[in-house]
Amino acid sequence: MEQNSRDKLAWTAARLFQRRGYHGVGLSEILSAAKLPKGSLYHHFPKGKSDLALEAAAFAHREMTRIIDDAFQNAESFEAGAKTLFFKLAKLFEMMGKDTGCPISLILFNGPEEDIFRKRCAEFFTSWMHQIASHAKRLGKSSEDAPILAQKIFVTLQGGWTLARANQDGNVIRGLSTLLFKE
Amino acid sequence: MEQNSRDKLAWTAARLFQRRGYHGVGLSEILSAAKLPKGSLYHHFPKGKSDLALEAAAFAHREMTRIIDDAFQNAESFEAGAKTLFFKLAKLFEMMGKDTGCPISLILFNGPEEDIFRKRCAEFFTSWMHQIASHAKRLGKSSEDAPILAQKIFVTLQGGWTLARANQDGNVIRGLSTLLFKE
Repeated sequence: MEQNSRDKLAWTAARLFQRRGYHGVGLSEILSAAKLPKGSLYHHFPKGKSDLALEAAAFAHREMTRIIDDAFQNAESFEAGAKTLFFKLAKLFEMMGKDTGCPISLILFNGPEEDIFRKRCAEFFTSWMHQIASHAKRLGKSSEDAPILAQKIFVTLQGGWTLARANQDGNVIRGLSTLLFKE
Repeated sequence: MEQNSRDKLAWTAARLFQRRGYHGVGLSEILSAAKLPKGSLYHHFPKGKSDLALEAAAFAHREMTRIIDDAFQNAESFEAGAKTLFFKLAKLFEMMGKDTGCPISLILFNGPEEDIFRKRCAEFFTSWMHQIASHAKRLGKSSEDAPILAQKIFVTLQGGWTLARANQDGNVIRGLSTLLFKE
């Protein structure tokens, strides 16, 4: 029960921050969207908004980690896994209403305590790239190529999501594997 | 004189929005950074913050357009032009303090009047890609490949800038041409 309201706050906050950034969302809006009382917020996050933002980003990070593993786990090749990843994320983007950005950058670049927030952001991004690189190696890529391919996937996805958001079109994300793997 | 204070407001606003997004910057902060009185703001931008934001984004758009042309104008190949573009933008990123994001997305995704702002954002992005594609054609790429290459440059740059910001490292942007043009 306690755990549920904590997760619900983090999840709701992540979704709202993804739309309007850290400064664009107030605590009262998060509480009302999560249908929880004010006491619940300070019970779980004594420091208030900045605490909640860090947890919301961590929540989004765990979600992304799971999606990356799901995409590559049973893939027959690295390219097939990357394609599945783009398709899964395109679907998520559409489900969220085509108006969201990367939760990590939208929460952690613009929050307070800039240095702590930014470092956390860099850690999450690095962790995704390591995770993708290790799938690449498992799927036969060399130790030299794997981190390069992982960075390619990462930057293409970050930029592709931004373009998809501007155009309100999930197919921009679906098309990224063609963009990457066909010259 | 009049023109100068208008440009100064737009330039200052763009730089501040690039750091903390539309909602993270107040009008008083912009005025104080631009060293201009409040009257100047409402003289040039009667609707206040949203007007100023649109002009700040347009200002950043013109800046980007100029940088793209400068990079490709005298390039011996499309790849060389792209490399110059990445190097110029890495330098800009470093000059701005390594803590800025794309001014267009940071102003136009999170501003008010979401639909107008988002459409403007899509127009600017499309215009950059057309501009890069036309340089690609001029430099010998086929009409089929040119728009694909332009989209590649665009998404790689958007995503690469985000990674550079997280890592506070302009070399991430300099490295993008290697990431793109070496398999």
